Parts: sequence; structure tokens; C-alpha cells
Amino acid sequence: MTTRRELANAVRALAMDAVEAAKSGHPGMPMGMADIAEVLWNDFLKFNPANPKWCDRDRFVLSNGHGSMLQYALLHLTGYDLPMSELKRFRQLHSKTAGHPEANETPGVETTTGPLGQGLANAVGFALAEKVLAAHFNRPGHVIVDHRTWVFLGDGCLMEGISHEVASLAGTWGLNKLVAIYDDNGISIDGEVHGWFTDDTPGRFEAYGWHVIRGVDGHDAAAVKRAIEAALAQDGKPTLICCKTIIGFGAPHKQGKEESHGAPLGKDEVAAARERLGWPYPPFEIPAEIYAGWDHRARGAAAEQAWRDAFAAYAKAYPELAAEFERRQRGELPADWAASSQAYVEKLQAEGPEVASRKASQMTLDAFGPLLPELIGGSADLAGSNLTKWKGSLDAGNGDSAGGKGNYVYYGVREFGMSAITNGLALHGGFIPYDATFLVFSDYARNAVRMSALIPAHAIHVYTHDSIGLGEDGPTHQPVEHLGSLRLIPDNQVWRPCDAVESAVAWKAAIERKGRPACLVFSRQNLRHQHRTAAQLAAIARGAYVLSDPAGAKFKAILIATGSEVELAMEAARTLAQQDVPVRVVSMPCTEAFDAQPLEYREGVLPSWCRARVAVEAASTDYWRKYVGLDGEVVGMTGFGASAPAAQLFEHFGFTVAHVVDAVKRVVG
Amino acid sequence: MTTRRELANAVRALAMDAVEAAKSGHPGMPMGMADIAEVLWNDFLKFNPANPKWCDRDRFVLSNGHGSMLQYALLHLTGYDLPMSELKRFRQLHSKTAGHPEANETPGVETTTGPLGQGLANAVGFALAEKVLAAHFNRPGHVIVDHRTWVFLGDGCLMEGISHEVASLAGTWGLNKLVAIYDDNGISIDGEVHGWFTDDTPGRFEAYGWHVIRGVDGHDAAAVKRAIEAALAQDGKPTLICCKTIIGFGAPHKQGKEESHGAPLGKDEVAAARERLGWPYPPFEIPAEIYAGWDHRARGAAAEQAWRDAFAAYAKAYPELAAEFERRQRGELPADWAASSQAYVEKLQAEGPEVASRKASQMTLDAFGPLLPELIGGSADLAGSNLTKWKGSLDAGNGDSAGGKGNYVYYGVREFGMSAITNGLALHGGFIPYDATFLVFSDYARNAVRMSALIPAHAIHVYTHDSIGLGEDGPTHQPVEHLGSLRLIPDNQVWRPCDAVESAVAWKAAIERKGRPACLVFSRQNLRHQHRTAAQLAAIARGAYVLSDPAGAKFKAILIATGSEVELAMEAARTLAQQDVPVRVVSMPCTEAFDAQPLEYREGVLPSWCRARVAVEAASTDYWRKYVGLDGEVVGMTGFGASAPAAQLFEHFGFTVAHVVDAVKRVVG
Repeated sequence: MTTRRELANAVRALAMDAVEAAKSGHPGMPMGMADIAEVLWNDFLKFNPANPKWCDRDRFVLSNGHGSMLQYALLHLTGYDLPMSELKRFRQLHSKTAGHPEANETPGVETTTGPLGQGLANAVGFALAEKVLAAHFNRPGHVIVDHRTWVFLGDGCLMEGISHEVASLAGTWGLNKLVAIYDDNGISIDGEVHGWFTDDTPGRFEAYGWHVIRGVDGHDAAAVKRAIEAALAQDGKPTLICCKTIIGFGAPHKQGKEESHGAPLGKDEVAAARERLGWPYPPFEIPAEIYAGWDHRARGAAAEQAWRDAFAAYAKAYPELAAEFERRQRGELPADWAASSQAYVEKLQAEGPEVASRKASQMTLDAFGPLLPELIGGSADLAGSNLTKWKGSLDAGNGDSAGGKGNYVYYGVREFGMSAITNGLALHGGFIPYDATFLVFSDYARNAVRMSALIPAHAIHVYTHDSIGLGEDGPTHQPVEHLGSLRLIPDNQVWRPCDAVESAVAWKAAIERKGRPACLVFSRQNLRHQHRTAAQLAAIARGAYVLSDPAGAKFKAILIATGSEVELAMEAARTLAQQDVPVRVVSMPCTEAFDAQPLEYREGVLPSWCRARVAVEAASTDYWRKYVGLDGEVVGMTGFGASAPAAQLFEHFGFTVAHVVDAVKRVVG
Repeated sequence: MTTRRELANAVRALAMDAVEAAKSGHPGMPMGMADIAEVLWNDFLKFNPANPKWCDRDRFVLSNGHGSMLQYALLHLTGYDLPMSELKRFRQLHSKTAGHPEANETPGVETTTGPLGQGLANAVGFALAEKVLAAHFNRPGHVIVDHRTWVFLGDGCLMEGISHEVASLAGTWGLNKLVAIYDDNGISIDGEVHGWFTDDTPGRFEAYGWHVIRGVDGHDAAAVKRAIEAALAQDGKPTLICCKTIIGFGAPHKQGKEESHGAPLGKDEVAAARERLGWPYPPFEIPAEIYAGWDHRARGAAAEQAWRDAFAAYAKAYPELAAEFERRQRGELPADWAASSQAYVEKLQAEGPEVASRKASQMTLDAFGPLLPELIGGSADLAGSNLTKWKGSLDAGNGDSAGGKGNYVYYGVREFGMSAITNGLALHGGFIPYDATFLVFSDYARNAVRMSALIPAHAIHVYTHDSIGLGEDGPTHQPVEHLGSLRLIPDNQVWRPCDAVESAVAWKAAIERKGRPACLVFSRQNLRHQHRTAAQLAAIARGAYVLSDPAGAKFKAILIATGSEVELAMEAARTLAQQDVPVRVVSMPCTEAFDAQPLEYREGVLPSWCRARVAVEAASTDYWRKYVGLDGEVVGMTGFGASAPAAQLFEHFGFTVAHVVDAVKRVVG
């Protein structure tokens, strides 16, 4: 009979060997947390290695993602499709074993981690998703949503501010199916943490309303098991289990020291560790009895089958609900979505409301929300400004007050935590999540927005008050560089609509962008409605289109604009027409969508022959050289904004017809 | 005799009236905190309205900056140069009373606040600066640095993650001269906070090692006074005073409600509040006896004079130290700086070490550090990777272990808090601060980096591991869009040097950039040394210069490169020369510095006639259209990176001589 320690030592050996082979990586954490992981994965975690996407599996998140070899070893040993050949290619090009766990690369990895603290935030999103999905679908006697979220985290995660934001929310929401296990090894990269991390962490989490289990010996399997059992017995609160561990456990000269954290142990130390651990097997060799002790395939298949049986009974009792559940799990939009959403867009074009695009966004939510029970969203304490609440919004976080229909989240002033929770909601399945703040505070959440694109996750980030149009709150609250910098994130889509119609199309595109994120950027101030033909209306989704061509003359210049500056461009074009300078106006709500169009379409909108181009956007100018080149001009912001009424600011910073007209005349020459 | 309440009511009236006149703003907080502010400013705060820059003044920070009218009212009433005419122009263009307090606009405003939580972080920076400066300069019997930092904050600041990061550090550092006063009014923008903010905040701060004073009635001046006295009696810990207040205190129908937070009260409610408060005076009128009760000019002048007398005695006892203190307060570099730093740059050019630019950065710190006792810096738990510790680095945060020479800060894994503390250190005076993390994690700190430029503050942000050259850690740790997005921040300077020489020049430029920030971006991997003439060496500081022109032929194309891609461009140019395609190579370590050069210089480097341009940078391509236009090409990153050894990644993503050569041939046509 193999011992628990022997099973754990398999993880230690694989971590040492893979890091050694890669000549880089982090052996310390996997060796330190191996005993804890062994107890969790063998005695508690609900999963089926043959079906990593089984919807009622427990979610396991490695928030201290640098210890990726822990997770790869666990996936390999328990029977996921992650063969030893992949472990041997740890951190190599095209392997399934990247330096940090990547959800889109490795079966069984729930989210991409490494940027510290965000794994915990994703986990809070998973736990919230489970709670809300359970409220939506479980029925008396039919519990089909019932899984836990487990997260490993270290000192780094706990030092990061985001851990505060999301632990506070998890406590407020009472996410009792969330269990966090803290690898309290006293070491971070700079050495022993007492010089820079002296928090009473248990006290801190109790202040958040968590159940805290202190002082567990992370190398005593029985103690770990008791702690986890205590966590499971807990009702109404998330649990933090604080495990004292020794980083690099088993490496005789490097354990307990920073040296074992982020570099190969070296040949001699690996040999000495094998000796110390009593692990006589060669690198990357696991004896059959150890594999047998880890093999979760039969248990996993049985667990999933039990759930499938329960779901069959549910489907019999509630056939429509079951179908709806399956639709949401597949991430398919409702059957009536395409027609209904298109009808709304066309109705808007016909009616032409002149509202702020943030208001248009709310109108769209009122139109689309009833079609999409999977929509869940909220704002970082700016609901009345972001206009993220719609008529069907009901509190999702706090208990069952919403009668099983909760879909609105009060995030408080926590932009980063909110955005990373949104990623978790998206990755969980069953939801299309959105979040919101002022555009300028996308900065606070920036790495989570990047992670939306990198993972990728179907997260919709709503940003209102999109320019100096914000007005009196001043430069601290006025975005300047944010449109450009969000556009620079690979695989991100940034929409900045010019009127209510484009706002609805932007939402439609974001909702239909399965598995990938979008940023929707809206104005504080009212925007004029633009007339469009059916072809123009259809072209909005292509990211840029000809909104206006001169009547009876070939255009000599192209004005490109987005959002609130489209109406300025249109007015300038009218003035220029009177002065015999025929100008095309291109509305470009989404540069990324436009860039993805075939060359022929792009040439049709921005023909190469026309170099007389002026871009107009109340944001930093540099990005627009991509479209206007060296011969064009950009009417934009070259510095920070100022505190004053919006209309004065547009005038002050040169967003006037006269200024745009002059720029066009200069480029026409 | 005027009562304390009457004095406080003057603040309330001014806040109501100014917001009413501006038709926007936040009356609730000033009305809620007026009684607390009155006690603090009249009984405790050390300041001289006639000299807002007196170096030993207490620092007052309004972290809940939306309550800006509180601060403007206090500055006006106590006698700063902020006349009533400016209060009447609250939130108007070119006024000194912006929507949120701005340090560069208003005398007496220590830092620009509004982005929540960052004021607290700046305050921690102020308090750390005071502690370290005191250790540097105070001598037995001569205490010339002895002031406190006071910060007001609200629920929003406490929800933000950055409050966790910096409160944890303040506790670890034992910043006992820091006093935070929490405006516990139970209201945030979305309403009563219990739905999204249920922390036991006192318990949380005790977990950080703070002294916490609970349950103070923020409308009872005597209670507030007792609490502040208790804070002053505290040794070794920062203090949090939790004051229960009523938002919008005095507005009969709106107090205690979200309605009073962020909008004018309206004419009727203002009239009713005047009635309720017993404040019969017309808008913007303050009776003489109220002014008299607030007037701090005589007391302030006496306080400063007492300090000046003490400093005169100090100067007599320690003339050299006193001169050094004054130099540092003026923000002047040492007399030998210019020559010594230039000699180091020239020595490097002659010696040509081939090291990673992060190593070159550390070598530069070793060379410049001894010249600059005002240099203080650290890293977010990446000292050994960022190479931010130099030979003279001594722990600044923890007690007097450094023997009065502390200059190194262990920030732990707290990028945002670190960067905002750096802003505080810079604004305090007496220091040139730097901080460091991986370039990709500049995201975590992004709004503080923006604030460095907006305030502005002389903060130096060091970012290493600047591209896919980071290697195996993979895409979560590999910056792609960060160079471009940092360059988009107005008034920021981003340096990405190509070798040790440019690295030293970048540091020199950042140090000499008085009052304004810079980002220094360094490689993980070794970089080749580039030969330069004296003229080329001098031109580095201009941001871009001709590194190589073809011998005996006019160039047909220009290769523009930065950092690690400069050597690639040089090699491609050599290959192209062999194939009769003469090419110029421009090294462009700092686009912003280059853009600021006269047209003639820029034309000299990038002549308009040459449109055959190729930019090479292992980062997102869009930014470079600014220099290569529509006819050029960019060899860069179009998606995220990958986990693999760096050399393989450069090959995989097309950073090869062959690829660059092909691009040049295409643009030459």
C-alpha cells in the first residue's frame, strides 16, 4: 500500500524533474503544497479526467500559478489527457505545459494564472457563478448545480490589492462553497516575508466575514483533511485554510529558503532530495502503484454518471428548464436572439433617439436583457452613472432575495476585482457577464482586461464617460490615452459608438463574440442620431463604414471619426461641401473589427489612393497614425484634460468645426 | 465667541454654494467631514498659509478627493492664496478649484486626488519620506524633520485594493506619524454600503498592525479632539480614527442619503440647510468673526519661524548637512552630478560591456547612487530580477537598522501601492524615488503611472523583462502592448535602451527630469554594445539618433528600432548592404524625447523624403505607424507571446534578420 506521502512525492519528483529539464521554473511551491494537493485531489475534489468540461465539476484554481508543475503533475497523475511527454516538454514551444497554467492550452486548467491575486478573483467569480446558477436552475429535490471552488494561493496573492477586493466581496456574498488554501511558507522572492508582509492574515479574513482555520500543518495529511472537512461543514461563509508549509519540502539544502522558489534545484540537490524523500525512481518515472493511487478515472466517471442520472430525472421533471440549462452550458444564444436583436437595431435606426450612448446602452440592456437570462452584470459603485441596471436587474450576490432570478452584481468600488470576477463568471459557463466603470478607471482593472483577451474569456467591459465630455470632474477622471491603450491589447475589441444605433450594434457584437471579450465605450453626453441606409446599418458590425459621401462629386479627403466626434465630422463635411471640398466621412466604432475585414472591404472604405485623411477622436492622437499615416492629420488630445463644463472643454481643446475644416484643407493641400 | 460648529458650518455653506454655482460637484462629504476638519485644522495641523511649501509642514491629503470643496474651503478660510473669487469659479476652466484637488493648480494641495485609494497611498509615501528624511538629517538636539501626515478617506478608498497594499506597508514600517481619518458615513454612490461593503474595517486595520480608534462621533468636536490626541500619543504604529458621520450633514431632506453625495442639493434644500444649520448669511459670504476664527496666518508664520530658528541652530552645528538638506529640498542635483554622470556614460561607451540592460541599470545605480543620497527606491518583490539593489542599498522602511542611511524599500508584491507611494515620496521633497517590477505588471500600477505624469511627480518607474525575451514564464508575463500604452500617457517619458550606454543615458535623463516622471524599460537578456562617435553619444538624450548610415551610398530605407531589436536592425542593415540596399539605422530609445526635438533635428534623423521605413520592436505594431506611416512596415508582435526559451521565441515571432531584410526590400519596392 502506498502512503499519502509517497503519492505526494510523485508530485515533488515531477516538479523537480520538469524544472530541471526546462532549466527554468518554480519547484518550491509544488514541493511545498504537494501534501495538501494530494489530500484535496484524492479525497475531496469532484472531477472526471475524461471530461474536463463536465459542468458540475469542482473548480480548482492555482492562484499562485508559478507553481504550475503542481497542477500539471496532478492532471497527469489523475488521468487527464496530459501525457508524460508533455511534462518532459515543460515550458517549451507548443507544449501543453506552459510556464504558467493556461486555460486554453491544457485540459483541466480552469483559468490562466500567474498574475498574482487574479486566480483568487477568478475563483470568487466561479463561486458566484455556481451560487447564481444554482438559484436559476435547482428545484426542490433536483439539485443539478452543486459544486465547489478550491483555490490555492500564496503570500504574493495575499499582498496584492485585488485579494482585498475579492475577499471582501466573497465575505459579503457568503460564498460558502469557496475554499481558499493559503500556502503560508514565509518566503517570497525577496526572501523571508517578515520584512514586508506582517499582516495577521487570519484576522484580516475574519474581518471580511470568512471562516478561518488557522495553523494547519501543511505536511500532515490528517490535519489537512480535518481542516477541509471543517471547511465543508461551514455554512454561509467562505473558508480560508492557513497551512504552514516548507517551500521546497524535501530538498535538503534549499528547502525553507528563497533559493527553492524560482530556479532549478540543480542536479546535486535533486539527487539529495530523492534521497531525503525516499524516491528512488529515475526522472519522469512513476511506478505503477503510485499511478494506481492517483488514478481518478473510474471515480471521476462514476461521479459524472451520477450527475447525469440526476440530470435525466431533472429533465423529465423540468424539460424546458433542462433544455435551457443545456443551451446556456453550450454557450449558445437563444433561438430568437438573432431576429429579435436585429429587429431592435432596425427599430432604433428608424426612431433615431438622441441620447447619450451610456443611455443607449441601458436601453439596449432593456431590449436584450429579457432575451438573455444568462446576462449577469454590474458596476463598480457607479450604477446610476454607468447605467448598467436595466428593468430586469435583480440583486444576484445577496441571498435568494431575487427569487432565483438574480442577475445584477453590486461590486462596490473595486474595479480590478470586479473585472477578474467577470472573467471567472465567463469561464464558469452558463453566463455572459458584463461589468462597468468610468473609462479612466479601466486603468485600475487593466491587467484583468488583458487577461480577458489572453485567457480568452467572454467578458464584456462597459466603460462610460469616455472623454473630456465627462466635464467638471476634471483630468483625474477624463480618459485620454485609454481608447488607444485598450485597442493595443491583442485580440481585444473596443467599440466606441457614435449614436444609439451603433451602441446597440456594439452590444450585439459583444454578446455574439463567443468566448472572447469586448470593451464597450460610451459617452456621458447626448449624441446626435445618424441616418443610414440598410447597407450602412449592416456595415456597422464590420467596425468601420462610409457614413457619408459627397453628393455628385468625388471626395478629396476622408474624415475618420468615432463616438461623439462623428457628429463633428459630419458637420465639418457639410461645411467643407459648401466650400467645394468634397469629403467622405467614415464612422469607425471598432478598429479591431475593421482590421479583421477582407482587404477589399477595407479598400472600399479607406481607398489607398486617398492620403488626405483626418482622424477625429477626443483621445490621444498617436494611435490614429495607423489610419491617416504621415500625410494625414489627427484632431485629438495631446495632453491631459481639464475641469470645466464639457462644451467648453471641446471648444478649448479644439474639437470644433473650424478646426476640423482647417485640418482637412491642410491635408488636401 | 464663535462656536466650533459655526466654524464648521462655514465649510458646509461654501461647499453647498460652490457646488450650486457650478451645477455639479459633491456637497455630501464636505458637509459630513466639516466638524472633523475644523478640529484637525484649527487645533492640530501644522502649516503656514503664506508658505505652502514650507518643508516641515504637516501634509494633509484628501484621499476622498471628490469632496474637494472641503479642502478649498479650508485653504480659503485659513488664509492661503485662494480668494473667494476662485471658490465662486469652482470647476470652471482655468480656475484654481478643479473638480478634484490638483497639486499643480492650487496652493496647499499636496497631491492630486480623486482616483480612490491613491491619496492614502501618497500619504503613506509622505510619511515614509518624513521618516527616512528624519533619519538622514536629524541629529541629537537638532530635530529639523518632524511633521505628520494626515489623510481623510472614505468607504471608496477602503474598498479599493490599493488601500490594502499600502495600509499593510504602513503597518509593517510602523509609520506612527501617519493618521488616517475614516469618514464612516455608510453611503457610497450605489446607496447604503451594507450590500457591498461589510468589512470589519477596524479589525482589518488592526490586522495590519495599526492603532485603531473606533466609534468616534464625527460631529462631536470634543470626541474628535480626544481621538486625535490619542493618535498623537501613539508610538510605533500608524493610527486609523473611525468617525461615524452623516453625509450631507445639515441638509434636512438629503442628509444621510446617497442624494447628497454627488450632485447639487438644489436651491430649496440649500435654503433649508441654511435654516437648519443656523447659517443666515448669503452665498459666498463669510462674517468677519468666522474668518477670524479660522485665520491661521499668524500662527502659521510663528510655527514656520520657530522651525527656521531651529534650522539656523542646526546649520550652525552642522553646516554641511544643512546645505545638503537645503539642496535636496530645492530638488537640485549635486554640484558634481553633471560631470560625474557624463564621465560614467563616456567610460561605458569606451568599455562597451555587453550585459542585459537590467544589469546595465544596476551598474548605473552603482555609479550614480553614491552621487545621489536623495535616491530612494525598491521593487515589488523582484529585487533580484529587476536588479534594483545597488551596492549602497540599505533598508529604509524598518527602523534605524540602516544607521540613518536607509534608501531601499522592500515593497512586497504590491505594484499599485508601490507606484503611488513613489508618487508620494517624490511629492514630499528631498528624494528622487524609483520603483520596479516586470514591464507586464506595470498594468497593475497603471493609474499611478498616469498620476505620476498628471500630478506631475518626479517618479522613476523601472520595468524589466521588457518583451518575449522574458522567455519561459510565458504570455502572462510577457509584455506586448505595454510599451505603446505607456507611451500614450501624456507627458510621460518611456526609455527602452539598446545597450549599457543607452541605459545609463536613460537613467541620467530620468534623474535630470526635474518634477516629471519617466519609465525605464530594460531587457532580461544580454544586449550587444553599439559603437558611437561623440556626436552620436551626445544625441542619445534626444530620444532618437542615427546609429548607422551606409558607407559611401545614400540610404534607400530607414530601419528604426529600440532596445534588444537595435542589434537585429544593425545586422539586417549589414546584410542589406551586402545586397546593395543601403539602409540607415535609427536607434530610438525614447519616442517622447525625440518628438520634443526641433523639426530640423527630427528631419535630420527621419527625413520626409524617405518613406521606405521599417520599425522593429518586439511589441505591438500599431504605435509605430506614427513613424513609418502607411508606406512602411513594422516588424513587431501582433498577438500574445508564448512560453519557451527566449531565443526560440524571437525566431518564432519573426524577429530574424531574414524577416527584417524582407520587410525592407518590400518597402523599398
